[in-house]
Amino acid sequence: MAAYGSFGSDNHAGVHDAVLRAIAAVNGGHVPAYGNDPWTARATEQLRDLFGAAGGVYFVFNGTAANNLGLSLLLRPFEAVICAESSHMLTPELVARRLGGRGDEHRAQPRAVAIAQVTELGTCYTLRELRELAEFCRASDLRLYLDGARLANAAAHLGCPLRDLAAQADVLSFGGTKNGALGAEAVIVMNGELGGEAPFQRKQQMQLASKMRFLAAQFVALLEDDLWLRSAGRANAMAARLAAQVRGLPGVQVCHPVDSNAVFAALDADHIRKLNRDWEFHVWDSAENVVRWMTAFDTSEADVDAFAGAVREVTAAT
Amino acid sequence: MAAYGSFGSDNHAGVHDAVLRAIAAVNGGHVPAYGNDPWTARATEQLRDLFGAAGGVYFVFNGTAANNLGLSLLLRPFEAVICAESSHMLTPELVARRLGGRGDEHRAQPRAVAIAQVTELGTCYTLRELRELAEFCRASDLRLYLDGARLANAAAHLGCPLRDLAAQADVLSFGGTKNGALGAEAVIVMNGELGGEAPFQRKQQMQLASKMRFLAAQFVALLEDDLWLRSAGRANAMAARLAAQVRGLPGVQVCHPVDSNAVFAALDADHIRKLNRDWEFHVWDSAENVVRWMTAFDTSEADVDAFAGAVREVTAAT
Amino acid sequence: MAAYGSFGSDNHAGVHDAVLRAIAAVNGGHVPAYGNDPWTARATEQLRDLFGAAGGVYFVFNGTAANNLGLSLLLRPFEAVICAESSHMLTPELVARRLGGRGDEHRAQPRAVAIAQVTELGTCYTLRELRELAEFCRASDLRLYLDGARLANAAAHLGCPLRDLAAQADVLSFGGTKNGALGAEAVIVMNGELGGEAPFQRKQQMQLASKMRFLAAQFVALLEDDLWLRSAGRANAMAARLAAQVRGLPGVQVCHPVDSNAVFAALDADHIRKLNRDWEFHVWDSAENVVRWMTAFDTSEADVDAFAGAVREVTAAT
Amino acid sequence: MAAYGSFGSDNHAGVHDAVLRAIAAVNGGHVPAYGNDPWTARATEQLRDLFGAAGGVYFVFNGTAANNLGLSLLLRPFEAVICAESSHMLTPELVARRLGGRGDEHRAQPRAVAIAQVTELGTCYTLRELRELAEFCRASDLRLYLDGARLANAAAHLGCPLRDLAAQADVLSFGGTKNGALGAEAVIVMNGELGGEAPFQRKQQMQLASKMRFLAAQFVALLEDDLWLRSAGRANAMAARLAAQVRGLPGVQVCHPVDSNAVFAALDADHIRKLNRDWEFHVWDSAENVVRWMTAFDTSEADVDAFAGAVREVTAAT
Repeated sequence: MAAYGSFGSDNHAGVHDAVLRAIAAVNGGHVPAYGNDPWTARATEQLRDLFGAAGGVYFVFNGTAANNLGLSLLLRPFEAVICAESSHMLTPELVARRLGGRGDEHRAQPRAVAIAQVTELGTCYTLRELRELAEFCRASDLRLYLDGARLANAAAHLGCPLRDLAAQADVLSFGGTKNGALGAEAVIVMNGELGGEAPFQRKQQMQLASKMRFLAAQFVALLEDDLWLRSAGRANAMAARLAAQVRGLPGVQVCHPVDSNAVFAALDADHIRKLNRDWEFHVWDSAENVVRWMTAFDTSEADVDAFAGAVREVTAAT
Repeated sequence: MAAYGSFGSDNHAGVHDAVLRAIAAVNGGHVPAYGNDPWTARATEQLRDLFGAAGGVYFVFNGTAANNLGLSLLLRPFEAVICAESSHMLTPELVARRLGGRGDEHRAQPRAVAIAQVTELGTCYTLRELRELAEFCRASDLRLYLDGARLANAAAHLGCPLRDLAAQADVLSFGGTKNGALGAEAVIVMNGELGGEAPFQRKQQMQLASKMRFLAAQFVALLEDDLWLRSAGRANAMAARLAAQVRGLPGVQVCHPVDSNAVFAALDADHIRKLNRDWEFHVWDSAENVVRWMTAFDTSEADVDAFAGAVREVTAAT
Repeated sequence: MAAYGSFGSDNHAGVHDAVLRAIAAVNGGHVPAYGNDPWTARATEQLRDLFGAAGGVYFVFNGTAANNLGLSLLLRPFEAVICAESSHMLTPELVARRLGGRGDEHRAQPRAVAIAQVTELGTCYTLRELRELAEFCRASDLRLYLDGARLANAAAHLGCPLRDLAAQADVLSFGGTKNGALGAEAVIVMNGELGGEAPFQRKQQMQLASKMRFLAAQFVALLEDDLWLRSAGRANAMAARLAAQVRGLPGVQVCHPVDSNAVFAALDADHIRKLNRDWEFHVWDSAENVVRWMTAFDTSEADVDAFAGAVREVTAAT
Repeated sequence: MAAYGSFGSDNHAGVHDAVLRAIAAVNGGHVPAYGNDPWTARATEQLRDLFGAAGGVYFVFNGTAANNLGLSLLLRPFEAVICAESSHMLTPELVARRLGGRGDEHRAQPRAVAIAQVTELGTCYTLRELRELAEFCRASDLRLYLDGARLANAAAHLGCPLRDLAAQADVLSFGGTKNGALGAEAVIVMNGELGGEAPFQRKQQMQLASKMRFLAAQFVALLEDDLWLRSAGRANAMAARLAAQVRGLPGVQVCHPVDSNAVFAALDADHIRKLNRDWEFHVWDSAENVVRWMTAFDTSEADVDAFAGAVREVTAAT
C-alpha cells in the first residue's frame, strides 16, 4: 500500500518471500489432511529438536489461539493464571503476592504463571530472570507458560538458542506471524507429561487446519538457514537504529529499553498528531502521549532514516 | 506426493494456482491488521452482493469455526440446535418431532435448525426443500443455519445463484478450503438483525486473523470470473464421470444420488482392501463395506479413468 | 394440599418429620459456615463409612448438581460421557458400540459411563450387571459414574448394603431429596485419586452452602436407625402393592418390572383422562398412553388402595 | 455450639424460629415440584409487589448463584461486568474509566455494572448515589446489577422501602440466608424485558429446587410482619452498639462507617490474637491488623456487651 514502511505493527507487514515460496513448493498433489503429511512431520521434528521439546509441537492459526491452547494444557476449570499487567515484568516477588488464597475453595486456584517473551513493551526477560522465575514456580507448584509471539526477537536480542529460552517453560508458543509468516504459530510442549491432550484441545478450540501442510510449510521456510533469526535480528536492528536516531531529539523520550522491534517514545501531543498524518503508528497511551513504533522483518534502513527524519523535522519545528 | 490423483477428500487437494497468485499479489507493503485493509473490504463487499446478505461477512480459518461462529449468533446458552444425523435429510416433519419440550425449563430449548448443503453424503437439498424447511422454521420461531462448506458444489449442481441458496437462511457459511483455497471460510449473515455480535464472537472464538488480507485474497481469487463455480462444477463432473463408469460393475453399488463431488459405493470388503493399496480413499462404513470417493477441483479425467479402471479390474478379478 | 396421596412424584412429597426435627436440632447458636461444623463432619464420616468411600463426600443442593459435580471430577473438557437413553439399561455391549472414535481428535473422547440406579423407568441393575459393566469399564479405560438419586430404593429392592452398590463406581450420588429430605444430595467419591478437586468444583458450580449444617442434618436424620432404608422400602412396598392391585385389570398393562417406587402402566387414553381429574400423576408417553405412578416415603396403604380402587372403577366403567 | 454469640459472620447464625415454623407449616401432603405450588406463587407475588418488579422473581440456593443468574440475564458471552474491588464504592467516574475499549473487538465489552448494597465493607450507597450511578449507566448503555445479599440491612439503615432501593437496578438479588433464612435467595428482575430467560438459565445453572415450597416458605416467613426488616434492623443496631462501645478504646480504630451489621476495626496484632482465643471473628487484613466483627439477627445486647467488655479488657491490658 504505502510506498514507505509503516511503523504500525509487525503484523501490518506481509509475508516473507521465502515463506510464500515454501507454500507454493508444497502445493503439488494430494496429501492427507489434518497434519498427516510429510511437511508437518518435518516441521514438527525440526521444532522439537530446536527447542528440546519432550511433549510435542502443535500448529495453530494465531497467537490468541496459541496462548489459549497452551494454557488449556496446564489448567483445570477452577484454576487461574497469574500474569502481568502490560507495564510490569513478572518477578517471583510479584507472583508470591498472588498466592494467598491457595487451598481456599472460595478463590480461583493459581496453577500457572504466564509471561510474554518479548513483553508487550518490547523488553526481554534475561535468561537469569527466566530461570529465577521458573525456579520459584517449580518450588511453588506453579507451571510456567511463555507467550512467544515474538520469541524470535528475544532470541536475537539475547543471542541464545531457542532451547535455552524455552528450557524453563512447561509450554510455550513460538510465533511465526509477526516474523514474516502468513499466519502460523506453534505451541511447543516442553514438559513431556502434558502433551497428550493437545490434539483434542486443538480440535475443540477450532484450531485444527485441514490443509495443515500450508501451516507447516511456513515453519519449514522460517527454519531454513535460520530465516526466523535473521528476520527477527533485522527487525531488532531497525528498532535500535530508530531509537538511536530519535534519542536526544528535543522533547522525545524513549520510554523503555529497546530489547526487540518496538520503540516506545513520549513526545508532544501536537507532534504525534503531525507525524501520524503521514506515518502509520499506534498511540499507546493518549493520556501520557506515548507512541509505539514497531519495525518488521521487511523494514529497511531507508524506512527508518526517512521516519527518523520526519520525527526530527516535526520536533524541531516549534 | 502421489503421481496419481487421490480420492481421499477435497481437503487432501492443494491450493488453486489462482489463489496462490492472489495471495502473492496482496503481499506488497504494510497494511492495517485484523481486516482493516482494502482486500478484506473488497471481498466482503463482493460476497455481500453475491449473497444479498443484510448482516455482514466474516472470514474465519476453518469450517468447524465457521459453524461455531454462525451458530453462536443464533443461540443463548440454554438453547439447542436441531440437526440431522449424517444419514438423513432434515425435513419439517423430522424437525417437528424435536419440538416437544419447548417452554419446559428442564429441556434445552430448540432455537435453530442446522443443515449442511451439500450434506455429508454428497446430496443436495433442492430449492423447494430448502424453502419448505425455512417456512417451517419461520412458522415455528426457529432460525435456520446452513453449513456451506461445499455450498459451491450445491450451486453448481442446482444451477442457481448463491443468493437463491442463501435466501432462506439466517446465517450460513461459504466454504473456500474444500474448493481450492488454502484455508478460508466466510460466515455470511443474511438476517440483518444478527450481525452485530459477530466481530466480538469471532475474536473470542480465536478466529480473528491478524494478516486478514491473506484470507480475503483467497476469496478475491475464488470470486474472480466465477472460479469458485468452475472449480466446483469440475469436481462435480468428475464425480459424475466416476459414478457413471463404476455403476453396473459387478458387485459395485452406488449408494446415494451423486449430487456433488462424492461417490458413495458399496463393494466387496476384499475389493476395498485391494483398491486401498494403491489409491487413497475413505472407508465410510466398514460394517456395510461402504466407501467414499471424493473428487476435487484438480481431479482430472485421466485420474478418474485410471481409478475407474482400477475398480473395474479389481471387481472383475474374482 | 390434597387430602389423599398423590402419585405424581417422590419429589412432590414433603419432608420426613425426623428430617425436620434434625434441622431444628442443629439450629442452636453460631457455627462456622461452608461445612466447617460438627454435623457436616459427622454426616460425612458416616457416609464415608457406609459407602467405603476413599475420596470424600460432598453435599450439594439437588440431583442435577450432584450429577454435574460428580461427572466434572471424571472429565476433561473434550471428553464425553456415555449414557443410556431413558428406555435402555446400559450394558457392556451397548457401551462398546460407542467407543469407535477413541484417539480420533475429531471426536469427543469417551471417558466415563453414567448410569442411574434406580433407572428412570424404576428398574434396577443387579449387582452382577453392575459388576460386569464396571469390569468392562475398567478394561476399557472408562470411569463409571452412578446417579443415585434413588439409590436408597435400589438398596431396599436388592437387599444389599450401600457399599456393595457403590463398590463398582468411581463416583456416585446418594439422593436425599426424593427420600424425605428437604433438599440435599451427597456426591460420594469412591476412587481415592479423584476427590481433590471436589471442593473447588463444587464452589465453582455454585453448590457450596454457607449454612451447610442444615444439609448435613438431613443426612444425619436419614442415616439414624436406617431411616433412609425404611423410607425407601416403604415407598417400594407401596409401588408393589399398587402394581399387584392393578395388574390384571381390564386394559391395564404394567410396562416394566416394579423394582422400586414407580409403576409404569399403559391404559386407555380416556381412562387416563378420567383418573387424572382426581389424582395427580404423570403421563409418561402420550402417544403410547403410558403413565407413571410414583409412591413416596409417606404413601400409605390407604392411599394405594384408594387409588387402585379408582383405577378399578375407571377401567371397569366401559 | 457456643454459649456466647459469635461475631464471625451472619451466615454463622442459624435459622430464625419463624422461618423454621414456616418450613414445617408447608410440609403437609404432596404438591407439584419445581415451583408450581401455592407458596411459591404467594412469595413470588409478594416480592414482586414489594419491589415493583416487572420481570419476575426466581428463588435460588445461595448468593453466588443469585449473582450468577442475575448477571447471566444481562450479558452475552463476550460481554463484561464492571465491578468494584472490595475497598471502593463504585462511582460514575470510576465506571467511566473502564469504558475505553467499547466497540473494539479485542476487548471484552462492558455491558453491566455490578455493585453490592450493602458493600463488602458494611457501607451503603445512599439513594442519591444509586440514582446517579444508574443514570450514568442508562446514559452509557450499561445495565445495573445489584447484589443484595444484605439488602435488608441497607433498607433498615436507609429507612426506605425496598422498591426505592431496587428502582434503579435492572436485576438484583434479595438475600434471605444472611438474615435468618436456612438457605434461600431471590433474584428479582426489575426490567420487564429481561425475565424471559430466567427459568431456563436457573435450571442450567443447577439452581432449580424440586421441593421449591421450602425455599418459598422461607420468604413467606421473612415477609410476614416485616420480619426481614426487624431482623436486619436488630443486626444493624447491635453493630452500632458495638461500634459505640469500642470507639475510643485505646488503640482501637473503627475503619469504615457502620452502615449495617459489620464493624471493621484496626487494633494491635497481639490484641487480635488474644481476643480470637475466646471469640470467633474474621481477620480481614492481617497486614494492616484489621478485623471484621459481624452481628446477626440473633445477636443480643448481652452478646455485644460481653464482647465489647472483652475488647476493653484486652486493649487496656498493656
